[in-house]
Amino acid sequence: MKLVCTQSNLNSNLSLVSRAVPSRPTHPVLGNVKLEANQETQQVSLTGFDLSLGIQTKFAATVEEEGELTLPAKLLTDIVSRLPEGEITIDSEAGETICILRSSSGHYQVRGMSTEEFPELPVMSNSEVTQLPTAALIKGLQGSLFATSADETKQVLTGVHLIVKKDSLEFAATDGHRLAVVETSYQDTDRSSEVQPESDIEEFSVTVPARALRELERMVGMRQLAESVAVHVEQGQVVFQLGEQRLTSRTLEGQYPNYRLLIPREFERQVAMDRRQLLSALERIGVFTDQKNNLVKFTMDSLNQELFLSVDAKEVGSGRESMAAQISGDDMEIAFNLKYLMEGLKAIPSNEIQLQLNEASNPVILTPLGGLKMTYLIMPVQLRT
Amino acid sequence: MKLVCTQSNLNSNLSLVSRAVPSRPTHPVLGNVKLEANQETQQVSLTGFDLSLGIQTKFAATVEEEGELTLPAKLLTDIVSRLPEGEITIDSEAGETICILRSSSGHYQVRGMSTEEFPELPVMSNSEVTQLPTAALIKGLQGSLFATSADETKQVLTGVHLIVKKDSLEFAATDGHRLAVVETSYQDTDRSSEVQPESDIEEFSVTVPARALRELERMVGMRQLAESVAVHVEQGQVVFQLGEQRLTSRTLEGQYPNYRLLIPREFERQVAMDRRQLLSALERIGVFTDQKNNLVKFTMDSLNQELFLSVDAKEVGSGRESMAAQISGDDMEIAFNLKYLMEGLKAIPSNEIQLQLNEASNPVILTPLGGLKMTYLIMPVQLRT
Repeated sequence: MKLVCTQSNLNSNLSLVSRAVPSRPTHPVLGNVKLEANQETQQVSLTGFDLSLGIQTKFAATVEEEGELTLPAKLLTDIVSRLPEGEITIDSEAGETICILRSSSGHYQVRGMSTEEFPELPVMSNSEVTQLPTAALIKGLQGSLFATSADETKQVLTGVHLIVKKDSLEFAATDGHRLAVVETSYQDTDRSSEVQPESDIEEFSVTVPARALRELERMVGMRQLAESVAVHVEQGQVVFQLGEQRLTSRTLEGQYPNYRLLIPREFERQVAMDRRQLLSALERIGVFTDQKNNLVKFTMDSLNQELFLSVDAKEVGSGRESMAAQISGDDMEIAFNLKYLMEGLKAIPSNEIQLQLNEASNPVILTPLGGLKMTYLIMPVQLRT
Repeated sequence: MKLVCTQSNLNSNLSLVSRAVPSRPTHPVLGNVKLEANQETQQVSLTGFDLSLGIQTKFAATVEEEGELTLPAKLLTDIVSRLPEGEITIDSEAGETICILRSSSGHYQVRGMSTEEFPELPVMSNSEVTQLPTAALIKGLQGSLFATSADETKQVLTGVHLIVKKDSLEFAATDGHRLAVVETSYQDTDRSSEVQPESDIEEFSVTVPARALRELERMVGMRQLAESVAVHVEQGQVVFQLGEQRLTSRTLEGQYPNYRLLIPREFERQVAMDRRQLLSALERIGVFTDQKNNLVKFTMDSLNQELFLSVDAKEVGSGRESMAAQISGDDMEIAFNLKYLMEGLKAIPSNEIQLQLNEASNPVILTPLGGLKMTYLIMPVQLRT
């Protein structure tokens, strides 16, 4: 193998695929990235794969001699990221696992491994591909990913449930304590002309691990909004294709909870207020919460159209904040887990938000006023009286 | 106690004194800051003290009622830093340890402790005060602090040895493996007219813990260069006074090593080169070092006026960099601990640096070319051959 590429190309593509390389690989070769140089296409392909998440990318290079090799991802990234801008020559003898990198002033030898043991990424058959609009994908991921469970024993709850419909995408995530649902219509978003007509779209649903979708979110965020992302689901695998970049992931098997049943349809009370004002007031009184007591109390004063937020930490002190709110319905007191409330507020992309409530023990819905169709459900915490 | 002050004043002064508050106090009251409101001066004084390092500061406030109290440093900083800009009212009943903070929309109760148990900071008797030029102090601390020992059992080596002379300051630090000495003449720096004439300066030396001097460096860096810093040493204590801010610290007792004896006076070889170029080459080949092997080899080629740097990590690979250098004396190979070398190079404030060497087992001196009078001595590492 012999090729010449630019430092910036190699560096940015390496850091992309390195995100799929495990820091503690179960097998040494999985700590490596696979590097393939193709003389015909004059392209270099890089692959990182932890057996669940895989990222592959291709970029232009002057390939003088074909070849493939796997190289330690961390070491290679550490070297390349520190090299000055300019050309890098990568060189290795056929059959050898030692690779030589040359820059303007440096000469580096890196010991790699042959590609034989490196597992193949799942491939995408072109027949059943669905094109998803980028903007809808970004909004859906931003509004749902935070609500997934970090507890690996919770199976499907560690992923986002994605429903691809003829005219919209639906994203749902829940960790058992709260639920986030986002619907993004294709019409709302800047659909590229490349996206296929609605009638061609095959409806399906899939639950994808949050870890893979966080990487997808990063990758999609770096691209043009007008582009679309191709998705293909097959045999427990999902493949997303973004131009020359591919992300593959195993899917989460098992029935996703029927979350629609949890969302109340009627409410006795509504409170509308400024989202950022509520967030900063919660941040301030949140100083008095800790891991044992993570509870904030809301007290409504519909007469004065004022909302009081308070935290009481007996031994330490207490905090109270007041803010203007449009309140309808009878006054009540209700308490929330501060963390769940704040995470939802941060993910909602609107200036004004609305709380919809029934009794102090019933689920509460948080929605943006205007803009995105997002529903965030949290269970209140029982107040000891 | 009742006072009104601005959020920005209270916030900046709180974060300053909080740096002297231990995160794990040996006595609960040491986790607090002491707050004193003086009606006559219309000033608030804040103090943090961990029994070794103390920081005190004063700022203007509208004091309606005198009083003093200690309050939990972390909780108070967390609240105040999140409050919006504007006025804050602080209120506590005489004899009570509960304090009420009011901002535009918030009302916070914080439980404190009486000031009785809070230890007094050492006081500075005005008689024997020396004025140090700020610029000289900054340069001296920047060039020496990094070389102190982090090992608490090493006593005096955990501090910087400061010698105040009639016309200059000398700073020395060593951890037993390397030594940094900086001399800053009063003439070199922009001496303020306030600084006392040389003849009045009492010569003395003192060893001050690095932790206290790092805080002093921060505090001095936030001030005008034209100001001077008053210093006073007495009974195992050193006090630095910067306007309304005071830093006190215990001094380190015991004989500081006679480091002048360690510095060679004659050299057989000299190598001059660009400092940043050397630093970035070392960063790149440093990728191949680890905790076991932290060794970089220098090979001189005086014929071509070229310097080669190399690291060899047998199992992993190797790196080599070359750079132009002005080399005089016979060619040689010499090896250094990469960490010690890079820390010195980062602290030297010049574009060009000079290495002065004898044999491969003798101490090596690193000095800036032009500008500051700084000497950095490192011991080479024996190369196994």
